[in-house]
Amino acid sequence: MKKIVTFGEVMLRLSPPGVNRLAQTDTLTMHFGGTEANVAVSLAQFGLQAHHVTRFPENGLGRSAAGYLQRHHVSTEFIRYGDGRMGLYFLEMGAGSRASQIIYDRVDSAFARIQANDIDWDTVLDGADWFHWTGITPALSQGAADCLLAGIQTANRLNIPVSGDIVYRSNLWQYGKTPQQIMPALTEGCTLVLGGKVLFSEIYGVVGSTFQEAGRAMIERFPRLRYITDTKRNSISASHNQLSAKLFDGTTVYKSRVYDVQPIIDRIGTGDAYMAGLIYGLLTFNDPQRAVEFGSAASALKHTIPGDVNLATVAEVETLEQGDSSGKLKR
Amino acid sequence: MKKIVTFGEVMLRLSPPGVNRLAQTDTLTMHFGGTEANVAVSLAQFGLQAHHVTRFPENGLGRSAAGYLQRHHVSTEFIRYGDGRMGLYFLEMGAGSRASQIIYDRVDSAFARIQANDIDWDTVLDGADWFHWTGITPALSQGAADCLLAGIQTANRLNIPVSGDIVYRSNLWQYGKTPQQIMPALTEGCTLVLGGKVLFSEIYGVVGSTFQEAGRAMIERFPRLRYITDTKRNSISASHNQLSAKLFDGTTVYKSRVYDVQPIIDRIGTGDAYMAGLIYGLLTFNDPQRAVEFGSAASALKHTIPGDVNLATVAEVETLEQGDSSGKLKR
Amino acid sequence: MKKIVTFGEVMLRLSPPGVNRLAQTDTLTMHFGGTEANVAVSLAQFGLQAHHVTRFPENGLGRSAAGYLQRHHVSTEFIRYGDGRMGLYFLEMGAGSRASQIIYDRVDSAFARIQANDIDWDTVLDGADWFHWTGITPALSQGAADCLLAGIQTANRLNIPVSGDIVYRSNLWQYGKTPQQIMPALTEGCTLVLGGKVLFSEIYGVVGSTFQEAGRAMIERFPRLRYITDTKRNSISASHNQLSAKLFDGTTVYKSRVYDVQPIIDRIGTGDAYMAGLIYGLLTFNDPQRAVEFGSAASALKHTIPGDVNLATVAEVETLEQGDSSGKLKR
Amino acid sequence: MKKIVTFGEVMLRLSPPGVNRLAQTDTLTMHFGGTEANVAVSLAQFGLQAHHVTRFPENGLGRSAAGYLQRHHVSTEFIRYGDGRMGLYFLEMGAGSRASQIIYDRVDSAFARIQANDIDWDTVLDGADWFHWTGITPALSQGAADCLLAGIQTANRLNIPVSGDIVYRSNLWQYGKTPQQIMPALTEGCTLVLGGKVLFSEIYGVVGSTFQEAGRAMIERFPRLRYITDTKRNSISASHNQLSAKLFDGTTVYKSRVYDVQPIIDRIGTGDAYMAGLIYGLLTFNDPQRAVEFGSAASALKHTIPGDVNLATVAEVETLEQGDSSGKLKR
Amino acid sequence: MKKIVTFGEVMLRLSPPGVNRLAQTDTLTMHFGGTEANVAVSLAQFGLQAHHVTRFPENGLGRSAAGYLQRHHVSTEFIRYGDGRMGLYFLEMGAGSRASQIIYDRVDSAFARIQANDIDWDTVLDGADWFHWTGITPALSQGAADCLLAGIQTANRLNIPVSGDIVYRSNLWQYGKTPQQIMPALTEGCTLVLGGKVLFSEIYGVVGSTFQEAGRAMIERFPRLRYITDTKRNSISASHNQLSAKLFDGTTVYKSRVYDVQPIIDRIGTGDAYMAGLIYGLLTFNDPQRAVEFGSAASALKHTIPGDVNLATVAEVETLEQGDSSGKLKR
Amino acid sequence: MKKIVTFGEVMLRLSPPGVNRLAQTDTLTMHFGGTEANVAVSLAQFGLQAHHVTRFPENGLGRSAAGYLQRHHVSTEFIRYGDGRMGLYFLEMGAGSRASQIIYDRVDSAFARIQANDIDWDTVLDGADWFHWTGITPALSQGAADCLLAGIQTANRLNIPVSGDIVYRSNLWQYGKTPQQIMPALTEGCTLVLGGKVLFSEIYGVVGSTFQEAGRAMIERFPRLRYITDTKRNSISASHNQLSAKLFDGTTVYKSRVYDVQPIIDRIGTGDAYMAGLIYGLLTFNDPQRAVEFGSAASALKHTIPGDVNLATVAEVETLEQGDSSGKLKR
Ligand SMILES: [Ca+2]
Ligand SMILES: [Ca+2]
Ligand SMILES: [Ca+2]
Ligand SMILES: [Ca+2]
Ligand SMILES: [Ca+2]
Ligand SMILES: [Ca+2]
Ligand SMILES: [Ca+2]
Ligand SMILES: [Ca+2]
Ligand SMILES: [Ca+2]
Ligand SMILES: [Ca+2]
Ligand SMILES: [Ca+2]
Ligand SMILES: [Ca+2]
Ligand code: NI
Ligand code: NI
Ligand code: NI
Ligand code: NI
Ligand code: NI
Ligand code: NI
Ligand code: NI
Ligand code: NI
Ligand code: NI
Ligand code: NI
Ligand code: NI
Ligand code: NI
Ligand code: NI
Ligand code: NI
Ligand code: NI
Ligand code: NI
Ligand code: NI
Ligand code: NI
Repeated sequence: MKKIVTFGEVMLRLSPPGVNRLAQTDTLTMHFGGTEANVAVSLAQFGLQAHHVTRFPENGLGRSAAGYLQRHHVSTEFIRYGDGRMGLYFLEMGAGSRASQIIYDRVDSAFARIQANDIDWDTVLDGADWFHWTGITPALSQGAADCLLAGIQTANRLNIPVSGDIVYRSNLWQYGKTPQQIMPALTEGCTLVLGGKVLFSEIYGVVGSTFQEAGRAMIERFPRLRYITDTKRNSISASHNQLSAKLFDGTTVYKSRVYDVQPIIDRIGTGDAYMAGLIYGLLTFNDPQRAVEFGSAASALKHTIPGDVNLATVAEVETLEQGDSSGKLKR
Repeated sequence: MKKIVTFGEVMLRLSPPGVNRLAQTDTLTMHFGGTEANVAVSLAQFGLQAHHVTRFPENGLGRSAAGYLQRHHVSTEFIRYGDGRMGLYFLEMGAGSRASQIIYDRVDSAFARIQANDIDWDTVLDGADWFHWTGITPALSQGAADCLLAGIQTANRLNIPVSGDIVYRSNLWQYGKTPQQIMPALTEGCTLVLGGKVLFSEIYGVVGSTFQEAGRAMIERFPRLRYITDTKRNSISASHNQLSAKLFDGTTVYKSRVYDVQPIIDRIGTGDAYMAGLIYGLLTFNDPQRAVEFGSAASALKHTIPGDVNLATVAEVETLEQGDSSGKLKR
Repeated sequence: MKKIVTFGEVMLRLSPPGVNRLAQTDTLTMHFGGTEANVAVSLAQFGLQAHHVTRFPENGLGRSAAGYLQRHHVSTEFIRYGDGRMGLYFLEMGAGSRASQIIYDRVDSAFARIQANDIDWDTVLDGADWFHWTGITPALSQGAADCLLAGIQTANRLNIPVSGDIVYRSNLWQYGKTPQQIMPALTEGCTLVLGGKVLFSEIYGVVGSTFQEAGRAMIERFPRLRYITDTKRNSISASHNQLSAKLFDGTTVYKSRVYDVQPIIDRIGTGDAYMAGLIYGLLTFNDPQRAVEFGSAASALKHTIPGDVNLATVAEVETLEQGDSSGKLKR
Repeated sequence: MKKIVTFGEVMLRLSPPGVNRLAQTDTLTMHFGGTEANVAVSLAQFGLQAHHVTRFPENGLGRSAAGYLQRHHVSTEFIRYGDGRMGLYFLEMGAGSRASQIIYDRVDSAFARIQANDIDWDTVLDGADWFHWTGITPALSQGAADCLLAGIQTANRLNIPVSGDIVYRSNLWQYGKTPQQIMPALTEGCTLVLGGKVLFSEIYGVVGSTFQEAGRAMIERFPRLRYITDTKRNSISASHNQLSAKLFDGTTVYKSRVYDVQPIIDRIGTGDAYMAGLIYGLLTFNDPQRAVEFGSAASALKHTIPGDVNLATVAEVETLEQGDSSGKLKR
Repeated sequence: MKKIVTFGEVMLRLSPPGVNRLAQTDTLTMHFGGTEANVAVSLAQFGLQAHHVTRFPENGLGRSAAGYLQRHHVSTEFIRYGDGRMGLYFLEMGAGSRASQIIYDRVDSAFARIQANDIDWDTVLDGADWFHWTGITPALSQGAADCLLAGIQTANRLNIPVSGDIVYRSNLWQYGKTPQQIMPALTEGCTLVLGGKVLFSEIYGVVGSTFQEAGRAMIERFPRLRYITDTKRNSISASHNQLSAKLFDGTTVYKSRVYDVQPIIDRIGTGDAYMAGLIYGLLTFNDPQRAVEFGSAASALKHTIPGDVNLATVAEVETLEQGDSSGKLKR
Repeated sequence: MKKIVTFGEVMLRLSPPGVNRLAQTDTLTMHFGGTEANVAVSLAQFGLQAHHVTRFPENGLGRSAAGYLQRHHVSTEFIRYGDGRMGLYFLEMGAGSRASQIIYDRVDSAFARIQANDIDWDTVLDGADWFHWTGITPALSQGAADCLLAGIQTANRLNIPVSGDIVYRSNLWQYGKTPQQIMPALTEGCTLVLGGKVLFSEIYGVVGSTFQEAGRAMIERFPRLRYITDTKRNSISASHNQLSAKLFDGTTVYKSRVYDVQPIIDRIGTGDAYMAGLIYGLLTFNDPQRAVEFGSAASALKHTIPGDVNLATVAEVETLEQGDSSGKLKR
């Protein structure tokens, strides 16, 4: 069984039932999520041995968060516990022309207090087949950025493929560094990057007039890179989206079908579901076209599942990937 | 008031709230359902005097199941209680491109343990205007098949019309007999059969290149037959289907309008809702076209009602049958 | 901050969870609503100082109703308490081709028992910038009609703009008067009327072959009138509607865009949301076109919010009014 | 199987979840109850054939109320439907030193509009073994009192035993008659009366210094009477009561044990549970001591069951009646 | 109507349903509470005009918190909105021998960021009859302590009575000051102090061997003081407590009855309920004995009410204060 | 960290919310439990490395059951998946004098289909510090009994202590063997047995007039035995019990304090909680008195926790074990 390692913050998500607004609810539904942990949970459903590495507060919330990951078959053996708070976010789910809204409350979390040496990466990555990170982690604190860099470098030393979703959130990055200072060293270690030409230009100064050209320039700049991937979303409403993805391997751009998604049950984590599906595809199929299709189908399915994480199985993704979107009852 | 009798297993259905998956829920919603009992409940909403005949375990689950039927105005006076378990099924409701999934857990139920003589059919069918059965019942056990045959033969003797939905589920039929051995004798007694040309060929060896031709051949083979009916479903997704039905009376094929159903709240029991609507129509209208339209409209409405059973009234079905699908608020 | 005053009955709404039918639920969800109070709540969300004037029973239900208005930032300082019951309505929410259904239970409510002098309108309307009423109130009792007339006349004396939604419900008006006897005097005091040419003709005998002509005739008949407005709804199903509105200022008919609303979460109070948006627009923008667009966008958004009242903010309405219906997640 | 008939209003009960107050809830739990119907439901659980006679509004609430009785095995075949509203009550459940509170909203219900001839008592009471009524019914309207009297007289003519719980609620009796005018004729027809010496004196002017003496005087005054019974409750708190009952047969006073009830889950309908238990006991045991013990044990058990009705079985009551209050798990 | 002003932080409380543990729940129930706001809500139920002064984050959580206070009739007109987070606490409710547990998450809240001049105390306290604060506020930040001091001094200048609950929580006080430095100046302004001899000695160095002697010494040290009060709790289990209180007016110690509280529904805020009852009593009765009895009865009742705030009415408290703890149903 | 291994069936438990009866609920709450797995979960909360060994159906229910164990920190790495159904039980929770009732539905479960060689005990028990089994397992099937015997013999070979709760349920044992045939060989391998003199006599023919004497005789008969333990329960009602335990080490009988437990939230699994506490105590304290006290305190605490498993921590148990049952709030 393939072993995968992810690293990043997990937050407690609190949302009113259904599409109620915060101002009219007296109950909140709990989920836990975080972009990297979402990838781990999804890969665990696909049958891989997924380990998520993070740092939790040493209290009932931290233990519940670990319980959530375990319940969904992710190993928590490398999680550290200590001071700091549980990162939170409040999600008001939208519908139709009303957008969903998030209030983040993650400042000074136990994860943000992680230090470079808190994780013994040699032990964690021993025997691993993939390591995944995102641009959220280095945006949180110097310690998180340092610890991540140590992880990537260990993975490189052990010849483990590394994927990075280089997502940029401008309201993070409060600790005195810019992505331009921090991201290049992290990207050096990557085999696969999720991002588009705007981000490539802003963060690395790498330019190209098309996805393919920008991708080629990225591969030149970061020689370890073998794949560039990106997703595309046409938002007709909060309940109706159209999705697709593409994958560039330095030579060819492989494009997935376009998925028409309606209704949308829960849009959170659908990008992470794509990434997990793509990683699964690359590790399994030796066929970039099928990998990008598998990732896109996984992402489409995630829109039908409440919570941040994709609880779809390989069989379900394959059904959709192979063109059956009929949703016919399975007995 | 017309009296109708149905016969078959009722199962406790357990499903996570909303479209949650089993792996993420700590609560299950209860409904009771079974293809024949669903027909009875629907006809009870239409104002007929519906009796469902079955066998339940003699415990709190059996009593709750009876309470469920009674709550929805079906008489339980002919239900037997005894050993064996309550049949169950777990339903994970899908959405969009994610299919609903059922885990059946009905082996060795109290109903499957029924014996040929457990029901006093002369008493049960006294004064009845219709008797309905389906191909699920003879698939469960020799006792169930025997008891059903006794019921059909009694109905025939008393000149009560009999309808059979000849649905075939290959993972049932575990007791040593095949449908080819059992179904013909049951079908002999039918006035109306729900099925299509594939089933006619597989089960009875009756062939015809169109619905009409196959229907004509069935009527030749089973002289008591007056009507053949079938439904058609185009599954765009688990949330969006298109439905229609047709009815053949030996001469003419009457086709219903096509109903575009979106969103789908609960697809379970929509075929049974059609059958109940058709039976009501045939008993009431003396107009095959109107009967098949009434059945199709009833089936379309069932998609908007949670649970296995159609709780729509005659007035609601007529509104839709007469072309008003606007869903305008009624004050 | 602009002060607005509304006057009318508030009912406790009781509805099964989701789209369940009354016959299958053991729980009811509570909301409070009433066409005039709905306008007040919506304007309170837009930041205005909204006061609702009504009469509640002096018991836990009346106090809960007041608490509901306060929770949503409406002042209840002018509410009276006394004998009589809480008005109620039971709402069964439909979906697709199944219509929602309401059972009213409001006879002899505490509000219907209000008397002409129960409200000190000079105090209530002191400093007010708008007064709003609807045709439900004078339909309930002579006392309610008298008290409303006193309010309108006070507003006229204080030069406060008055809007009237002249909705007509034939099953109300049980106290011996007809709308033809009562409505003209109330309409005399109006600056703005919501209604269409059929109502104008039936209630006032004012005729016109188009909305514009009928509007012009109304303005002639009621010289205080400056605006006529109306909404239009195309009901494709209970889950899918198309909406628009128009506003006539004596010269020009301003038409809003057509909003395609799908899915519909809760259709109740969407007309009131339009009225609140229009009032806000007229008080804020000095641009009739923008006012009618703001009202229509507000109404469209209300369809996504559970309950009778529109909890959308100005920023949310403006996003939609300015053409962004993408529902993209806001972080 | 013994047939029992009860007659009276059934109300929809609405209560916040748990012990929340009305002012803090957004959800209400539904139950249906009424003192006479509660007796019918309890006897149905004991295996008798119970029919409740009442009049419901012809809408979804009336049909749900009938469904509730049917679900709990009470026959509704003699229920009438017509105009008028569903009677309601709002219940705030107390705990410890905080009392439960009820807001009644039952004026002008469909039941209160019943007329003397609405029920064909000869058909209803055909073959009945017991008829039960209470002092609530004649307090609601002249029609209800008349219809009840017709029922009692029919029972007398058919030699069916009649029990009357002569409960007096002063805030009812709004239609112009007093209990002193109405109750004696109803009591004439009774075999068994539930009440105490204060009521006997106030309503009938029948006095006695002890329960026994007052009972003897009642039997003299109403020669058809064979039994007088009463219950006693010591309220330590809303969560802790002590209960007992006594039964006088003209000769001996049979006293039950004292039941210490803690915790109290739902106190509503516990008197009705006693009455049902006593009726069952008198019909079954031919032993007044055992009958009063059975009734008291039934009443004690009802305190542990949510809702107005006693869902305990004969076996459960017998366990407690025979002294086992250990509550040990039954597998 | 008497006007009362309270000042302090309000937190969002999140707790699993019932007595479930955090590790086993997927839903959290919302309440809002804070020791000073709890006093305001309780006094609002008693019919006083209560204003709570605080600072909330300018987002949906801050607006929901204000809505909560308004729903329970507390005025929020003097509340400020700005940066910082919503203070939170997670509550796991215990039972029997299992203690309830709280995880606080209130660091850097919008309230803690309040500054000395953020509140215009002259406007806020205009016409006020009482001002209440607690030792939580000065423990949170220098700004909160400064702002509170300004409030107390304004109240003193306007001759408004001031009460202080001098509760000491050692894990607060993180901003560099000690209670010994901060509390004396605040206590200078008090008319009434809630505390005991241990606190008096630790915080002020004021000693006395009994409550009476220590109280006398406090009054000497703080000449504005007229009353010292304290509560006493005997914890038999998390579900069973015994409560009493005493009030010293410089001359006499008035002791309340001892209340045996079982079961305990929610123990949070029961001290605040005492304080509110005492304030109400002192403002209303001119009888110290009755005031302390009213406060104790209010506190006992609060144990039966879910949430942080006491929703009991004056009538309910008086029933218990006058010795009726029978919890008998009120119709 | 100590490693513990348990072996046995896990069932899905389905229960109505609160103390509702099956006949009145439409929702069921899910828990998973089984006497041996309950011990594992409890020990996992105490910080030990607990592995539960069982066989689950290869479907969503089996995966959810595994997720439940993982969520509560029990390793599922040695669990097998295959054919057969999920074992179920329906639990109706009682209160006061009403007993809880269980309907088992576990026949032919995936676990009952386990075969002797399905578990590689050498791998499973490698490095283990304790192995625990109960008399439920050998009662289910020959395969389960055989597989258990293999486990015990492997533990003996590896010198791992073995505990057996020799509980006897007469309605199990349906596969043709008696406990007298099967239990002795299993008991041969035990270090610790939970049981009393009645069971010792019935199952093994080992007699003794007191617990001490019977224990001594057991140790003679089964030379590997070092400890005999038993629990005692006085059931005052379903909501109020008194508990204690004793432990015999061949020389001395160590008795725990008596715990008065009121209220009882959930009685299921309280014996398993004792066993887990005792095992923890024996592995940790080297003090039999403290071990039996720790076990009894753990059992008392379990009564306050919903579900089958004890989620109490070592710190919580120690608080109670050391005499603090005050349930005082922990901040
Ligand atoms: Ca609400
Ligand atoms: Ca999730
Ligand atoms: Ca969950
Ligand atoms: Ca159903
Ligand atoms: Ca239901
Ligand atoms: Ca609302
Ligand atoms: Ca609330
Ligand atoms: Ca009930
Ligand atoms: Ca759970
Ligand atoms: Ca609260
Ligand atoms: Ca129910
Ligand atoms: Ca559990
Ligand atoms: Ni899982
Ligand atoms: Ni589309
Ligand atoms: Ni969820
Ligand atoms: Ni029904
Ligand atoms: Ni369509
Ligand atoms: Ni349902
Ligand atoms: Ni609000
Ligand atoms: Ni559309
Ligand atoms: Ni709502
Ligand atoms: Ni029942
Ligand atoms: Ni007692
Ligand atoms: Ni209930
Ligand atoms: Ni309130
Ligand atoms: Ni006590
Ligand atoms: Ni609450
Ligand atoms: Ni856990
Ligand atoms: Ni005790
Ligand atoms: Ni649970």
